[in-house]
Amino acid sequence: MSGDQIIIFDTTLRDGEQSPGCSMNTREKLEVARALVELGVDVIEAGFPVASPGDFESVREIANRFGDRTTICALARCVPKDIEDAKGALAGAAKRRIHVFLATSAIHREYKLKMGKDEIIERAIASVKMAKEFTDDIEFSPEDAARTELDFLCEVVEKTIAAGATTVNIPDTVGYATPNHYFKVISHLKKNVSNIDRAVISTHCHNDLGLAVANSLSAIEAGARQVECTINGLGERAGNAALEEVVMALRTRADYYKVHTKINTQRLYPTSHLVSSITGMKVQRNKAIVGQNAFAHEAGIHQHGMLQERSTYEIMRPEDVGYVGQNLVLGKHSGRHAFRDRVTQLGFQLAEDALQRSFDDFILLADKKKEIYDSDIIALIENRMVDSADRWKLISFHTSAGSSAVPTATLQLQCEDQPVLCDAATGDGPIDAVFRTMERIMELTARLEEFDVRSVSEGKDAMGEVRVTINVSGRQYQGKAVSTDIIEAAAHAYLKALNKADSERRLSAGPRSTSSAAT
Amino acid sequence: MSGDQIIIFDTTLRDGEQSPGCSMNTREKLEVARALVELGVDVIEAGFPVASPGDFESVREIANRFGDRTTICALARCVPKDIEDAKGALAGAAKRRIHVFLATSAIHREYKLKMGKDEIIERAIASVKMAKEFTDDIEFSPEDAARTELDFLCEVVEKTIAAGATTVNIPDTVGYATPNHYFKVISHLKKNVSNIDRAVISTHCHNDLGLAVANSLSAIEAGARQVECTINGLGERAGNAALEEVVMALRTRADYYKVHTKINTQRLYPTSHLVSSITGMKVQRNKAIVGQNAFAHEAGIHQHGMLQERSTYEIMRPEDVGYVGQNLVLGKHSGRHAFRDRVTQLGFQLAEDALQRSFDDFILLADKKKEIYDSDIIALIENRMVDSADRWKLISFHTSAGSSAVPTATLQLQCEDQPVLCDAATGDGPIDAVFRTMERIMELTARLEEFDVRSVSEGKDAMGEVRVTINVSGRQYQGKAVSTDIIEAAAHAYLKALNKADSERRLSAGPRSTSSAAT
Repeated sequence: MSGDQIIIFDTTLRDGEQSPGCSMNTREKLEVARALVELGVDVIEAGFPVASPGDFESVREIANRFGDRTTICALARCVPKDIEDAKGALAGAAKRRIHVFLATSAIHREYKLKMGKDEIIERAIASVKMAKEFTDDIEFSPEDAARTELDFLCEVVEKTIAAGATTVNIPDTVGYATPNHYFKVISHLKKNVSNIDRAVISTHCHNDLGLAVANSLSAIEAGARQVECTINGLGERAGNAALEEVVMALRTRADYYKVHTKINTQRLYPTSHLVSSITGMKVQRNKAIVGQNAFAHEAGIHQHGMLQERSTYEIMRPEDVGYVGQNLVLGKHSGRHAFRDRVTQLGFQLAEDALQRSFDDFILLADKKKEIYDSDIIALIENRMVDSADRWKLISFHTSAGSSAVPTATLQLQCEDQPVLCDAATGDGPIDAVFRTMERIMELTARLEEFDVRSVSEGKDAMGEVRVTINVSGRQYQGKAVSTDIIEAAAHAYLKALNKADSERRLSAGPRSTSSAAT
Repeated sequence: MSGDQIIIFDTTLRDGEQSPGCSMNTREKLEVARALVELGVDVIEAGFPVASPGDFESVREIANRFGDRTTICALARCVPKDIEDAKGALAGAAKRRIHVFLATSAIHREYKLKMGKDEIIERAIASVKMAKEFTDDIEFSPEDAARTELDFLCEVVEKTIAAGATTVNIPDTVGYATPNHYFKVISHLKKNVSNIDRAVISTHCHNDLGLAVANSLSAIEAGARQVECTINGLGERAGNAALEEVVMALRTRADYYKVHTKINTQRLYPTSHLVSSITGMKVQRNKAIVGQNAFAHEAGIHQHGMLQERSTYEIMRPEDVGYVGQNLVLGKHSGRHAFRDRVTQLGFQLAEDALQRSFDDFILLADKKKEIYDSDIIALIENRMVDSADRWKLISFHTSAGSSAVPTATLQLQCEDQPVLCDAATGDGPIDAVFRTMERIMELTARLEEFDVRSVSEGKDAMGEVRVTINVSGRQYQGKAVSTDIIEAAAHAYLKALNKADSERRLSAGPRSTSSAAT
């Protein structure tokens, strides 16, 4: 460890969750928050409480659960109701931060806010003061700072620090900055804001031009000491700076940057995997640090060099980021103890009953698949983790399809302890036929928006993970499942999504019989 | 247009193809080369001819086909045989470049080359001179330049320019550089190499720390005038600098960089899509410029801003990069003329017979699927493009599967004009049963290495694209197909891959009956 510490502010649960198709429920957010705590991030931006009751509840749960170990932050516009909601959600956290923001660039002032400079400053000061009554730890963001006139930016920063902001964040909201330009903005603030030493300067970069990580590092060189980032670079449009890239660049080039973070880098790969699995946002194979190929060397020349001396082509070791290869670890005769050990090594903390359920799945899988890899185990556990209280269960299914036959499915479904219902339907293919039969039995009409299959392990009998996104009455629901049989996985995934839609239908309609008509 | 022109050197077909799992056959490489020519790249690095007869053949074909419009480059180590092969492959190109490379960093000298500095310089000079006899356009790369002692780097660059190199490339082979460090290296060369004005300085950055694009731009600021890059940032490990990000950063921030490229940016998205489709390397949704979300705005606050004035949150327009949305364009009653127009607008140039085949597919699809999107049309065309001369055809298939049934498939296959063969097999699921039946009939044993499904269009009856990678006797083969029925798509994809393995088996064994035993 040398030099200053960089504060890692993770906004996967706030800015990351704003990615199209990435919304998470409270349970999923808690799972990600737990992983971020294990990873060692300094601040978790848990959400934007005023946005929805669900957002409020997630921030509240995360604050209650993890607010003694890690600073929990809630976002608020410069509006009293926003700040009140942030306070309410954060009340249970010992370490808590309110993050207020207001746009300052000319284009935002004119077209979005329709406010003058003086009004913006007044509003910002009042909001910081209001938040300060609740906690000392206040962050202020002049939105679109990178496109704001430097003089006005200095004025806003100086006055919000005077009002009590302890962190000033300089967002490149539209991903327009270049490393040199961003360096100059931060340097200018360091030189021209009289009270700048009373606050931490923070970066928040978007990746529209592929420069989010470089801009963040450039800001650090200019004196920023907090980086706002997300796992896998999630976020609106092309996303935010990727936490794993910022952290590993600082670590690998500690000789150059001369700063350090408190991140437990061996948790990077498992955390990336978890977020990708929960949000359904896959990481491309050639993604830096956490992509499947990040540590793979193909060319003969490179392989030759690698055999001579790893450092000829390797600047990081896979184990430094906790990379899980296709390690053959367990077989049919591995006992419960060996399974529990491996699960712990992979970074999961399971309660006894969850462990038992996963172990049961493992034994079933070992019957079908001779070689069980780490990736199989991760898939099994994640499969169980996103299980919700599903009222409808699949009792049996049968499909028939072919070039000269109309694809047909026959299903038995049971809703809680009611009689088993049986029906059949045709479709474009056997999977479509399964989906239509389910909708027919459950009296729901769904539109399939996404259907995604990936193999999660190797070999002839590889496990396939199916993920579906459906739309019922304008709302999206996701489901996923793994199996060695793709139709079985698809059936379970679709049923999970339909179960979510069904429970929402029941909530909105009040108690009623399951045979009532779908809305 | 203002300022200097930056030479865009695309190495998708050389460094990109070195990505694990990304190898392309000659036909696929020609397709990518055609797209690169349309895109307007200045130099296409087409391959490394000495590496294999297939590589040689691809470079030769690309040189013959496109060497009058775009400079075609071939890679060679500083070895006479390599340079001879490069000459042979490039002979048909009017615009041709040989790219010779030799590592110069201490760690590579010691562990890989086991050569001293003097020997390296001698070898480099001799190789440049040898290549120069064939063409004036010579590029020299001191491999791992970013970790090479600056004095030695200057000496190597000076002497290779004196020997005839017209481009000197400064590779950050292991992705270790930072933007500032790389800026200093290029600036140092500009200042300290006496004959530097006689050559173009080139960058070649790897993305291990997520900095490849930023390092390339930084080099341009220091005076580099060629950027080596790949579509989608393909390449070993975390890949190379992404062409689309470099180009759009230079264009969007032309006010800052004051340079331009000759790239037709509206071809960026279609080219990205083509490369992703051919290599099977998907682009993540939050990838800058060409990701599915790159232009998607989710948060309510942002949407409000967007409605007021696009530039509040948008620094590039989707149409600038040729983004194809889910546009509803054609239906069952659209004629051949409308289809041809749309195909042309999407950037495809099809011969009359290829157009007819795609139109026939379109009519069949329109029977199954009411709404035909651009993405459906692209899938149909690409499906036909990678068609090879397949000896085995699928005549019919039938599958049966379910929770209480053993998954079973029944298939009819025909090899050219021989009698139709019929057989059945069981499997872990109906798709696995189809695969096993095919192997049984064709007498081939294959291992499924990857199985990937994605929906290529929207709606309940979305088309699914299945891509498989199989391993037969240690060699990999890929196949892909689209259909509204996943089992049908999987069957066609697997058969394509098996057909490739079968034709190689026949080539290596010489003419023989198709009923001979598999090797």
